[in-house]
Amino acid sequence: MASIKPSVPKGTRDFSPVEMSRRNFIFDTIKAVFRKYGYQQIETPSMENLSTLMGKYGEEGDKLIFKILNSGDFWADAETKKQKNEGFEFNSKSLTSIISEKALRYDLTVPFARYVVMHQNEITFPFKRFQVQPVWRADRPQRGRYREFFQCDADVVGSPSLLNEAEFVLIYDEALSNLGLKDFTIKINNRKILSGIAELIDKADQIVDMTVAIDKLDKIGLDGVTKELLERDFTPENIEQVKPIILLEGTNEEKLASLRSVLASSATGMKGCEEIEKVFTYLKSFTLQRAKVELDITLARGLNYYTGAIYEVKTNEVQMGSIGGGGRYDDLTGMFGLKDLTGVGISFGADRIYDVLQELNLFPATTGQSTRVLICPFDVEGETYALPLLQKLRNADVNTELYPAGAKIKKQLDYANGKLIPYVVMIGSDEMQSGQLALKDMQSGTQEKLTAEQIIAKLTA
Amino acid sequence: MASIKPSVPKGTRDFSPVEMSRRNFIFDTIKAVFRKYGYQQIETPSMENLSTLMGKYGEEGDKLIFKILNSGDFWADAETKKQKNEGFEFNSKSLTSIISEKALRYDLTVPFARYVVMHQNEITFPFKRFQVQPVWRADRPQRGRYREFFQCDADVVGSPSLLNEAEFVLIYDEALSNLGLKDFTIKINNRKILSGIAELIDKADQIVDMTVAIDKLDKIGLDGVTKELLERDFTPENIEQVKPIILLEGTNEEKLASLRSVLASSATGMKGCEEIEKVFTYLKSFTLQRAKVELDITLARGLNYYTGAIYEVKTNEVQMGSIGGGGRYDDLTGMFGLKDLTGVGISFGADRIYDVLQELNLFPATTGQSTRVLICPFDVEGETYALPLLQKLRNADVNTELYPAGAKIKKQLDYANGKLIPYVVMIGSDEMQSGQLALKDMQSGTQEKLTAEQIIAKLTA
Repeated sequence: MASIKPSVPKGTRDFSPVEMSRRNFIFDTIKAVFRKYGYQQIETPSMENLSTLMGKYGEEGDKLIFKILNSGDFWADAETKKQKNEGFEFNSKSLTSIISEKALRYDLTVPFARYVVMHQNEITFPFKRFQVQPVWRADRPQRGRYREFFQCDADVVGSPSLLNEAEFVLIYDEALSNLGLKDFTIKINNRKILSGIAELIDKADQIVDMTVAIDKLDKIGLDGVTKELLERDFTPENIEQVKPIILLEGTNEEKLASLRSVLASSATGMKGCEEIEKVFTYLKSFTLQRAKVELDITLARGLNYYTGAIYEVKTNEVQMGSIGGGGRYDDLTGMFGLKDLTGVGISFGADRIYDVLQELNLFPATTGQSTRVLICPFDVEGETYALPLLQKLRNADVNTELYPAGAKIKKQLDYANGKLIPYVVMIGSDEMQSGQLALKDMQSGTQEKLTAEQIIAKLTA
Repeated sequence: MASIKPSVPKGTRDFSPVEMSRRNFIFDTIKAVFRKYGYQQIETPSMENLSTLMGKYGEEGDKLIFKILNSGDFWADAETKKQKNEGFEFNSKSLTSIISEKALRYDLTVPFARYVVMHQNEITFPFKRFQVQPVWRADRPQRGRYREFFQCDADVVGSPSLLNEAEFVLIYDEALSNLGLKDFTIKINNRKILSGIAELIDKADQIVDMTVAIDKLDKIGLDGVTKELLERDFTPENIEQVKPIILLEGTNEEKLASLRSVLASSATGMKGCEEIEKVFTYLKSFTLQRAKVELDITLARGLNYYTGAIYEVKTNEVQMGSIGGGGRYDDLTGMFGLKDLTGVGISFGADRIYDVLQELNLFPATTGQSTRVLICPFDVEGETYALPLLQKLRNADVNTELYPAGAKIKKQLDYANGKLIPYVVMIGSDEMQSGQLALKDMQSGTQEKLTAEQIIAKLTA
């Protein structure tokens, strides 16, 4: 067989041991917090029926879904279809529906909705679930954007209580603080406030255009937003009305007070203010660790989806896009025939969090370490001598390796360094005779002579 | 949008919270043992280039690989190809290579080989890696056979030492004992012994036919094996020679002694005996927890692949196929151009282990439990009253939920039962006045009045 120069498909990645342990640190930290708040893990298949996914992400999204070729003789199926249907033309679109019936999941949300509908009779509602799995998108790969990446979501369905909204702030605060971030902001908004503003200027039907524009305030500034609103057929009067609202400053309470007076004529807008206020009231009963919470009425994020709270999380320590986001949606499962089930959820951007922790040097020194001690025999006799020590250390739950006899000590120490193993025990003939083994601390370079029992005691201390 | 009756593709599964916690119990237990023995986790992409996978699993295997449809206008590519190549015919096979360039991984072994070759300059050899990820096969789904299932592999490459072989026995023993299995057998064989037997009867070129037949001894009995060998052109004399070997009884030492005398004329056969003996010698230095180790010279398993040790693990407590297997292979990475890198590895059959633990009722009672206490307020005042207790419990690392105000206590208790939550705290007006809250043990049904501090003390004890 000719040898192939191996590579991975573009936009995909291998994760080596050190990367894996860092990723596990992130996921384990977040999962522990999800569990602490009552969220339970589920997993759904990597493949969904194409019909489950198509039409859920817009026309652009449909194109980015990875389709799986039917196994068996798909071409025969295609030819049969053509023979039976006069005028049927082969093209990529018409063929796809014949030769593919499954696809890789594009996000965790639609499969979750499908899951809830399929399992509704066995689920205890309100259903608090979390899910950490890869998703696939046929996007053009670029720095920081992958074709396979992990999503890390928590959602509760079947509970309208705003306590859930408050708890998601606590979850972000606790998880990101536990990860070591020191300064980050959880921005919160409410779709009903955005609706209220659109009503106020008599543009309820153009709420999407309006929010797409004002969402860009921190990127393009007020002049940019003004220009974009004019291009989208908002009048100068509209803009004069909107301007003071989107420029609101002060504490969250001050902003809320201003909004209440501005939006007094909009029942929807007032409802939004009420909801946000209730969330803030809940939060007053809790002590946040490190998060700042900020009412940001320019925040929109996939607006068509959300019906209540909208979240976005940003670190203030490095330049980076949002590291989390989410919101409330009132009809997640409607697309699968289960109406009126309200939900609210958040997501952590694991890849970006990885980059932030890396840049701030926040990964604990122990990530990447796995084996705690390597036993290095000088020869076959040393190897045999080492076997009982090896078992005793493992029985004491110390991750231990014995380097097989036959390699020079230098090579064995290089191995320990390569694997970031903090201790080695060296066993030569002197050591075997005296029973005093050489324990070396690989970081400090110090070395001491200890009995096997003393070594076990030291490493299990 | 018309509502769709949701389903998952055949051969795939959703994992609900209780299943997930049981699967996590299995994977976490096995991973902890892998780590204890110095194995480090890696992950590879779900997709590989089609060229990486094709031709590695035989013709049948190639058909079972799930191919991914190229994004973009794949039909245009197909038509171009046809126009440029006179006589080019469209059929499923010729089209696949044009419209698909990626596929889902079929196992963890080939991607691992690809990984080792790609990352050879950054790897510290011997490289001990483990990997727990799903694989996909377009097999006909049936009971216990899925199109998406998890493999759980550990391999070491770059070390010829038979200490590795012995340690895999220890890993099986420790992991399966920790999972609660009480009686299981690790069968071990060596490809070189099988080669020796084939040489002995002058059928070295028919070793595969021979081993395929004798591998079935426990299924079809001696008469069945005889019949099959005759059909495969073995002579009655061959069979008379092989018979006593495959029927060897006694201790492992007795079997080895017999083999040594029978295979004396075969250098390869004697080498196999020596290797097995060395593994047994290593094992004498260790105390196994619960495993029986048995030399079984009928064991073959994907023989063409293995060059040394061969393993298979069976439970003796329930009727079930093998729950683990593996062996040594001397040229894993040759297919990607890196020659002479020896490897040995094992795999755990997670789905079968799940079924065994289920049948033997071995899952710890706590799997499925996640939230430890649910706070149940009678009304909005109770909810507000509960918030500080909620935070204190969580600060003490107790997984705690507060049921949002507005639901009847009966519904809240049903929720606790549905989620297997062992404790609830009920907060009504009496409780708030006295500060004595009602803590109910959901299993025993007993209830006691305690202060918030006493509840925290009790649940963190």
